[in-house]
Amino acid sequence: MTTLGIVKRNIIRADAVAVEKLGRFGVATIHEALGRVGLMKPYMRPVYRGARICGTAVTVLLQPGDNWMMHVAAEQLQPGDVAVAACTTENEDGFFGDLLATSFQARGARGLIIDGGVRDVDELERMGFPVFSKAIHAKGTIKATLGSVNVPVVCAGALVNPGDVVVADVDGVVVVPAALAQTVADAAEKRESFEGEKRAKLASGVLGLDMYKMREPLAAAGLKYID
Amino acid sequence: MTTLGIVKRNIIRADAVAVEKLGRFGVATIHEALGRVGLMKPYMRPVYRGARICGTAVTVLLQPGDNWMMHVAAEQLQPGDVAVAACTTENEDGFFGDLLATSFQARGARGLIIDGGVRDVDELERMGFPVFSKAIHAKGTIKATLGSVNVPVVCAGALVNPGDVVVADVDGVVVVPAALAQTVADAAEKRESFEGEKRAKLASGVLGLDMYKMREPLAAAGLKYID
Amino acid sequence: MTTLGIVKRNIIRADAVAVEKLGRFGVATIHEALGRVGLMKPYMRPVYRGARICGTAVTVLLQPGDNWMMHVAAEQLQPGDVAVAACTTENEDGFFGDLLATSFQARGARGLIIDGGVRDVDELERMGFPVFSKAIHAKGTIKATLGSVNVPVVCAGALVNPGDVVVADVDGVVVVPAALAQTVADAAEKRESFEGEKRAKLASGVLGLDMYKMREPLAAAGLKYID
Amino acid sequence: MTTLGIVKRNIIRADAVAVEKLGRFGVATIHEALGRVGLMKPYMRPVYRGARICGTAVTVLLQPGDNWMMHVAAEQLQPGDVAVAACTTENEDGFFGDLLATSFQARGARGLIIDGGVRDVDELERMGFPVFSKAIHAKGTIKATLGSVNVPVVCAGALVNPGDVVVADVDGVVVVPAALAQTVADAAEKRESFEGEKRAKLASGVLGLDMYKMREPLAAAGLKYID
Amino acid sequence: MTTLGIVKRNIIRADAVAVEKLGRFGVATIHEALGRVGLMKPYMRPVYRGARICGTAVTVLLQPGDNWMMHVAAEQLQPGDVAVAACTTENEDGFFGDLLATSFQARGARGLIIDGGVRDVDELERMGFPVFSKAIHAKGTIKATLGSVNVPVVCAGALVNPGDVVVADVDGVVVVPAALAQTVADAAEKRESFEGEKRAKLASGVLGLDMYKMREPLAAAGLKYID
Amino acid sequence: MTTLGIVKRNIIRADAVAVEKLGRFGVATIHEALGRVGLMKPYMRPVYRGARICGTAVTVLLQPGDNWMMHVAAEQLQPGDVAVAACTTENEDGFFGDLLATSFQARGARGLIIDGGVRDVDELERMGFPVFSKAIHAKGTIKATLGSVNVPVVCAGALVNPGDVVVADVDGVVVVPAALAQTVADAAEKRESFEGEKRAKLASGVLGLDMYKMREPLAAAGLKYID
Repeated sequence: MTTLGIVKRNIIRADAVAVEKLGRFGVATIHEALGRVGLMKPYMRPVYRGARICGTAVTVLLQPGDNWMMHVAAEQLQPGDVAVAACTTENEDGFFGDLLATSFQARGARGLIIDGGVRDVDELERMGFPVFSKAIHAKGTIKATLGSVNVPVVCAGALVNPGDVVVADVDGVVVVPAALAQTVADAAEKRESFEGEKRAKLASGVLGLDMYKMREPLAAAGLKYID
Repeated sequence: MTTLGIVKRNIIRADAVAVEKLGRFGVATIHEALGRVGLMKPYMRPVYRGARICGTAVTVLLQPGDNWMMHVAAEQLQPGDVAVAACTTENEDGFFGDLLATSFQARGARGLIIDGGVRDVDELERMGFPVFSKAIHAKGTIKATLGSVNVPVVCAGALVNPGDVVVADVDGVVVVPAALAQTVADAAEKRESFEGEKRAKLASGVLGLDMYKMREPLAAAGLKYID
Repeated sequence: MTTLGIVKRNIIRADAVAVEKLGRFGVATIHEALGRVGLMKPYMRPVYRGARICGTAVTVLLQPGDNWMMHVAAEQLQPGDVAVAACTTENEDGFFGDLLATSFQARGARGLIIDGGVRDVDELERMGFPVFSKAIHAKGTIKATLGSVNVPVVCAGALVNPGDVVVADVDGVVVVPAALAQTVADAAEKRESFEGEKRAKLASGVLGLDMYKMREPLAAAGLKYID
Repeated sequence: MTTLGIVKRNIIRADAVAVEKLGRFGVATIHEALGRVGLMKPYMRPVYRGARICGTAVTVLLQPGDNWMMHVAAEQLQPGDVAVAACTTENEDGFFGDLLATSFQARGARGLIIDGGVRDVDELERMGFPVFSKAIHAKGTIKATLGSVNVPVVCAGALVNPGDVVVADVDGVVVVPAALAQTVADAAEKRESFEGEKRAKLASGVLGLDMYKMREPLAAAGLKYID
Repeated sequence: MTTLGIVKRNIIRADAVAVEKLGRFGVATIHEALGRVGLMKPYMRPVYRGARICGTAVTVLLQPGDNWMMHVAAEQLQPGDVAVAACTTENEDGFFGDLLATSFQARGARGLIIDGGVRDVDELERMGFPVFSKAIHAKGTIKATLGSVNVPVVCAGALVNPGDVVVADVDGVVVVPAALAQTVADAAEKRESFEGEKRAKLASGVLGLDMYKMREPLAAAGLKYID
Repeated sequence: MTTLGIVKRNIIRADAVAVEKLGRFGVATIHEALGRVGLMKPYMRPVYRGARICGTAVTVLLQPGDNWMMHVAAEQLQPGDVAVAACTTENEDGFFGDLLATSFQARGARGLIIDGGVRDVDELERMGFPVFSKAIHAKGTIKATLGSVNVPVVCAGALVNPGDVVVADVDGVVVVPAALAQTVADAAEKRESFEGEKRAKLASGVLGLDMYKMREPLAAAGLKYID
């Protein structure tokens, strides 16, 4: 009757080729290509400058002040995965530090997205292990209560299923359902190809008002120019 | 009966010489020279390290989740202007990204101050287009509802009239009424000339207690030294 | 009947050798060595990248919008001290800037921890004077009301007694009671020596599940693996 | 590729008998019976004292500042339903007031749960139409952009599928998956029957330490009594 | 060069008849009649249940932790006025309590709107002196620094000029510029007369979809019904 | 080296007569009598209207998501005590509900102050067991990790020692050190006797400007009246 105390071993990961392709685009572009859904809340920030992640989600459901499930999750991580950790309540303790990062990196994981706190941030940067979190907090945790691994979680307001693609950069974190990875990657590519052309026009001084033909709808909506 | 749906084309910008002079001083100094008023709330932060802006305000009043007015504002921007965007309600969507920045830069704008979110932050830094915002958020916006351009707005708690001087650096954002630009620039200059002398004294070990003659008023206020 | 209006001149500082030893460890390690207590709230952040502090606390109790006591505190600072400033209410004004930093630095102080705002952040970085604060805000303060110096204060949720050791780095700020400085430094050293060994094992692919012998207690707690 | 612009007409509602049974228990009890998951964040509060809701969810996905989908949702509401509204971004506008409440009530709806703002709160109380929301805000909305009705939504951090049972009282809001309604109702009943006995014992002065046999595990964990 | 240290004695108050008429409508209705602008942020809440205010603004600009200007403002209050207090920085101290309320009430004031804290809330309710504030806080203030009375202020994000009409109820606080008072009151009346008719239709089961003729524009925007 | 895992059995409670006398005054008055210190942060609010507490503190240090120590604390409570619970990190789980309240009430406790969440709020009101908390949250907790009882704690920003007097009403929560209870109670009484006289004068129309002789210092500070 609950989703606590469960580790799902076999998950269906998004297609690897599609994941690599998604990794070439920014979060803002992917979010648009996905139909403007799938973003985590903007309080999720990179713990060091330049952090960037793209991979398939292994989800973790944590209890407050307890990181036991992080160790359980390590075993489920495969090369190309990203750990995505939610908590059953709001908590900003430091659930993750350099030792866990060493273990995750040894498993081939590409980073961590966590709706909580992390620590050892300087060491994480030296290791090149990118993390996006709600907080940085030296407060350690215990290992006493069960959560789960690879159940659906709500992380920073977004639903994440195991195997979904997670992309994170300075603009935020977006979740692409595994089944849509290739379609969204293609849509992102198409979208970006249009942007170069638009950028050139705008740089030359053409106004968006004219390029997007906005003058008529603005007038229809009642916009008035006064002097 | 409302200030929505209006674009004011002719605004009185602060004197260009005074604006350049203000640009030589920090926000903290200008805020003091102005009589300790005119600051935006401290949640307004630069989106990249080293961002700094000084220019004349073209104001934008946005609707939540809608950046239509940003395109209308682009046409009103002149070299030396800074776009200052407020929203009719609290909203942290990404109203602004690299395409709009390209257009604003082509118009000669010096940056953006926005009581909301922006995206494409890496690209903004590469372009050298400084932005101060409440949030960074990949969430895009639509173009469906009228706001206004060049009406007075309340941005992050500060009243901004079109043409006012806006100065932003790592310490925050300050608004100088257009009519006071020269007087405030002169006061800031005077203030700063005094600071060098004070700094030298303090660096040599003179205490502020003595330099500012505080010992007597402190005793009068009842301060007690105990061992 | 109050702790306002008092300056305590003679305080018992933590042993200098122990302080230097504590300075070799990160905040997360010290917090663990201390028994997982003594941390300030995670909203306390360095005002520039790479800031780091370790020293003995000279405490300051400020009134909102008033930094008079900062000047009184300057005289009590000795080489190796860190100013730790609390406020009688929540206030994010800029209580501290480059002039006070110059004076504090001339006294030999190693930095400032403040549950409030600071300004002149670029200049603080150039001077190499590290500050951890709740906010950055250009808003200046007056000098009109008495607080105290070297009374016990609650700063960002942590109790700080004058003479305690305060250590701050990117992971947060921790307070070590003066009497425990040597014991905690030794415990931190011991803790860190164990970490290198653990890190090597984890890097080689050994799982925490095995290294920490967690499989049995996890099963006992009811963890279920499903496919 | 998106979940926007969709209205699902046929949804599988939780069994009516189970829903009525769930309505007899408090949110805290149901949350425990469900295995301590399914709660919305604690910022969701009743807009008037004594508000209480139990019914089956018709979900609404709103755009910021736009309540068009509320009118679309009205048609999908059946007697016994509760509207559960999420937003694609954080927004506290007043999406809902007395006119919509009149319409919802005419359809037989039992209340509204909304991760946003509402208005006309006095009138809602007079009508006896209970609402749990993130904010109260007089700011009205437009009707211009498509969201969806009866798609899965994340509301205040909890995943809600159409047809799930939603129970709300002064302690918060809990979501019970439709398929678990009867089992959870039975578990809640069982749980509550035990509570009466415990309450009597505790009221007579028996300590939880003894009633729950905690003294031994506390000693084993290292608890020390000192005088 | 500053707006501090000034008391303006003669202000132009909104027309008394228009003020009384505005007092008959709710904040949500007035905000709509005004063109959906003029609202304060939703963190402004009544300090007791049922508080409601309508009157002409006497504005107060406070310094943090200092309520000296409240006493200066008392003398400027006339029957029918509402004190509207802003602060030069964010501060939640208790600037106002039962003694000041007694004085304000003796002057004929109808209430207080304050972007800060108040105290003696039980006594305020007994006196029937309504207050809308950002916080309730027992923390008292000093009387040491000048602010101003009857200068334009930004209170909770809204611009308030002395003499403007301020209306506050459970839905929030709205500011009507003095010159627009009669027009807005008339527009509110007209708006409300339409609402009764709409309410009756909706109560009888007519859907907003049909009453507002939304089906066609929804289809045009691409809304899809699925089973 | 830590304050975790400790229960102190013998504490020195404030004098009972002084406690009863303090109970006759409001929190704002006591806070003034104490020299304007000792208040908790204003986010601490009564969970039901009319809640009020005065008693001697039995302190509890909780771990996040864990209320084991509440049961340990119950045994230490004596008639006239108030439980004051802090947490080692920020956490809003529901640590306390009607069963614990039944047990606390059977021990003679007068209420609970908790820097966290509580639940069963309707039942707490029916029982007449007053609680002041940071949050209301149905989320339950486990019993797995040691905290402490009757060690000094920082609760909502205030230092509380076991035996201190804690007074809570609608204006907030104040802590009076045990040794100062009688002196503060006397000072509060004196303060209140003056207030009646002042209130009568103000009610008769005398201005605070005159009653407190503020006109001269205001003029000296530079206040200017303009027309």
